[in-house]
Amino acid sequence: MDDIVFKMLDTPQLKEPLFIEGLPGVGNVGKLAVEHMIDQLKMVKFAELYSKYLPPQVMVTDEGSVHLVRHDFYYHKAEGTGRDLVILTGDFQGLTPEGQYNLSHATVKLIKDLGASMIFTLGGFGVIRMVSEPSVLGAVTDPELRSKFEEMGVVFKRGEPSSGIIGASGLLLGLGALEGLQGICLMGETSGYFVDPRSARAVLEILGRFIGVEMDLSSLEVRARQIDEITSRIKEDIEANESEDRKDDLRYFG
Amino acid sequence: MDDIVFKMLDTPQLKEPLFIEGLPGVGNVGKLAVEHMIDQLKMVKFAELYSKYLPPQVMVTDEGSVHLVRHDFYYHKAEGTGRDLVILTGDFQGLTPEGQYNLSHATVKLIKDLGASMIFTLGGFGVIRMVSEPSVLGAVTDPELRSKFEEMGVVFKRGEPSSGIIGASGLLLGLGALEGLQGICLMGETSGYFVDPRSARAVLEILGRFIGVEMDLSSLEVRARQIDEITSRIKEDIEANESEDRKDDLRYFG
Amino acid sequence: MDDIVFKMLDTPQLKEPLFIEGLPGVGNVGKLAVEHMIDQLKMVKFAELYSKYLPPQVMVTDEGSVHLVRHDFYYHKAEGTGRDLVILTGDFQGLTPEGQYNLSHATVKLIKDLGASMIFTLGGFGVIRMVSEPSVLGAVTDPELRSKFEEMGVVFKRGEPSSGIIGASGLLLGLGALEGLQGICLMGETSGYFVDPRSARAVLEILGRFIGVEMDLSSLEVRARQIDEITSRIKEDIEANESEDRKDDLRYFG
Amino acid sequence: MDDIVFKMLDTPQLKEPLFIEGLPGVGNVGKLAVEHMIDQLKMVKFAELYSKYLPPQVMVTDEGSVHLVRHDFYYHKAEGTGRDLVILTGDFQGLTPEGQYNLSHATVKLIKDLGASMIFTLGGFGVIRMVSEPSVLGAVTDPELRSKFEEMGVVFKRGEPSSGIIGASGLLLGLGALEGLQGICLMGETSGYFVDPRSARAVLEILGRFIGVEMDLSSLEVRARQIDEITSRIKEDIEANESEDRKDDLRYFG
Repeated sequence: MDDIVFKMLDTPQLKEPLFIEGLPGVGNVGKLAVEHMIDQLKMVKFAELYSKYLPPQVMVTDEGSVHLVRHDFYYHKAEGTGRDLVILTGDFQGLTPEGQYNLSHATVKLIKDLGASMIFTLGGFGVIRMVSEPSVLGAVTDPELRSKFEEMGVVFKRGEPSSGIIGASGLLLGLGALEGLQGICLMGETSGYFVDPRSARAVLEILGRFIGVEMDLSSLEVRARQIDEITSRIKEDIEANESEDRKDDLRYFG
Repeated sequence: MDDIVFKMLDTPQLKEPLFIEGLPGVGNVGKLAVEHMIDQLKMVKFAELYSKYLPPQVMVTDEGSVHLVRHDFYYHKAEGTGRDLVILTGDFQGLTPEGQYNLSHATVKLIKDLGASMIFTLGGFGVIRMVSEPSVLGAVTDPELRSKFEEMGVVFKRGEPSSGIIGASGLLLGLGALEGLQGICLMGETSGYFVDPRSARAVLEILGRFIGVEMDLSSLEVRARQIDEITSRIKEDIEANESEDRKDDLRYFG
Repeated sequence: MDDIVFKMLDTPQLKEPLFIEGLPGVGNVGKLAVEHMIDQLKMVKFAELYSKYLPPQVMVTDEGSVHLVRHDFYYHKAEGTGRDLVILTGDFQGLTPEGQYNLSHATVKLIKDLGASMIFTLGGFGVIRMVSEPSVLGAVTDPELRSKFEEMGVVFKRGEPSSGIIGASGLLLGLGALEGLQGICLMGETSGYFVDPRSARAVLEILGRFIGVEMDLSSLEVRARQIDEITSRIKEDIEANESEDRKDDLRYFG
Repeated sequence: MDDIVFKMLDTPQLKEPLFIEGLPGVGNVGKLAVEHMIDQLKMVKFAELYSKYLPPQVMVTDEGSVHLVRHDFYYHKAEGTGRDLVILTGDFQGLTPEGQYNLSHATVKLIKDLGASMIFTLGGFGVIRMVSEPSVLGAVTDPELRSKFEEMGVVFKRGEPSSGIIGASGLLLGLGALEGLQGICLMGETSGYFVDPRSARAVLEILGRFIGVEMDLSSLEVRARQIDEITSRIKEDIEANESEDRKDDLRYFG
């Protein structure tokens, strides 16, 4: 079996499309963001990628049918002054370092063939505390890109993330740069404890400004509030238990 | 050494055989089921598969002789209106994701060459509680297959198994579908704590209806009762120990 | 770099040599045994094997010089009625399952080219208790070999080792059998806690009978007694400490 | 994607250069040492190595730009009687044994093409205690090299390091020797708890004598004192806490 198999569903003709990656990761920020875009812009799937670098399993749909785990590529033909888009999302990231390299390399090759000129990788930046108003960190392939993104609200923190950017969001930029493609990683602040639609929303607000597309982000806010409710209920339960425990402790002396 | 080596023992001429997989897995349900079929239908082994994706070891027989770990392929020529069958079982599943993919891919290629039109993968569905009357869950490659199997008693639970189907039982369906083969995974409910002949029996009852073969399943029921006895003796021992422990605890205060 | 590199030092002309493997393993029984043979029979090294399947490191000699970890092949030209011998030992076994398969496959190919007709793999059989008079278990590639070895004192226990024979001692037999070579694994009983020269001695006593070679095994017995002393001193220390602990416990009540 | 990709920035013409490796490792001694040399000698980068054997990530600079993790090769053209130099450093060592072998093999090939005649690998020798005046251990590819280095102050301890030399510092010597290159590993004693500029300094003092280059090592001493301060502050904190704890303990009886 070939290490990586593309199943092409369509051959889109695009004009210097922007490429946007949103695979699973910290807080699932990148995946939530691109799934929202795919839905809002009614994007069209044009390719599936299967690979032995992905987990050896099928996913089961609500209807009880299965499909091999995969990466999916979508495109969007812009109307008017907007930019053509290509999006990557999927069930999993590559399992091994070698798999990560080969998958990202195959993706860079595909988007280069489609004429892409700029890479956006989307992800979460875990801060290990609850975040109510997430800012969006950036890291760029080319220092000259920085000021343009700072004007749009992207924050650059000296040397952050200090441990680098791991996985597809890092590799697509690094391998893309070796092939002459510019790019930026947009990282929404997130606790890292839960999936984080609010962080995804913050990332999309900035991305939307750049690509000149109006998106309705209210459904992400609705999901964020649902998660707020769940987390505050968990918090209450923990506090209630703790005060129970304290009562129990006192009994020994009571 | 080649990654995968087939040792062909026979070249069966079959008519659109059904392919059935039963490798080791949860509760060993799939393997117990197909071993019973091989025995009942006096099936003939026609191929052995050796591979560096299997553990680096030999098995030792009761008589003290060794054989390299392997996968075994059997066939059954139907009499009358029945269907020709091909069965896969073996000592182990592939050790790595890449190994799982390559082994399943090689198997799909083999059964396609044999003219197989439909894949059955058999396994256990772990529910982490004792099950006295196991139902059989299904997941299909094609939504249109579902109603036919529901009529035969297969249960479809919305989005279950929620973590997908992992290993050969998933991959053979997923990779088979990419090659145009339809299939179903039949999963017998099982605690997941023990090998489970009763769950294997439940799977075979449904499978037997589909393939039009009468099998005597009583020996599986005998083995199931033996395991019932072992588990209730273990349970009694645990309870006896616990009540001993409680007595011990009381002595401190006695 | 090639996955496996042979560095040939000599081209021995041998007559149906017996091949004997003694790589590191349980109790280091196999390696101790073959190192003793190499020393006693003044065997000649004729090949070194280097491989990326071995650990990425060099060994440091007492004199402060380094050599890349490797497998070493030795030969012995028999005088009179004895049998020519080829021996494999080395610093480590392969690190991964795939590495184990490829290394054993390369070795089988080498010894077939040398005309070998029979494989002896030597190892330890861990019994997790101290053993003063180790017996030697056997497992054969061909049931017909069994009685001949039983006559020489090899013990065959029904289905043992129940978990199979793992690593080079298993694979060389399994892969060798696929290439038409007969073989036996000789496993000296050993606690598994220490290196075990006494178990190595037991294995060599039986092997010596088969290959018709007289070897002085007294130095192995000397090393065994040194280890006996160390283990009984450790045992005494533990017991002394335990009785100290008991005194300490009593002080709380004293 | 190729397993290893060299990006050549320059084609240096060198005369039997000495090759010096300083990748990350115990106490980061080797990397600190070569970074100091690169800085002091104003060495010129002539090659970058990218590989799927390195971690799948980018590093982020203080300015917020990213680069794929890599190995860097520098050269130095000697003036007068000195020796030409080639240095290897990088962000990480290879992640897997196979990766380590392939990376070191590619490096040996590169430096052979450049005419290198001698390999120096630099690292730390962890002694699990604080070291104020680190000595420098050596291990050589060829026993004849030993006395020359002993005269320069390198220490050879019988059979040390007893577990061998692991990673690039070992493999470059081992693989280099197979290709006819001589070499030495210089290991500065270090606690192994912290990065250790003082150990790097000790290594450079000896290396400087051999290569006939005067280097100002005072900045390494400055960094060493900064780390001394940090470690003594940590030590004081621990002791203060311990005495607090003891007071707390006493309260139970107070």
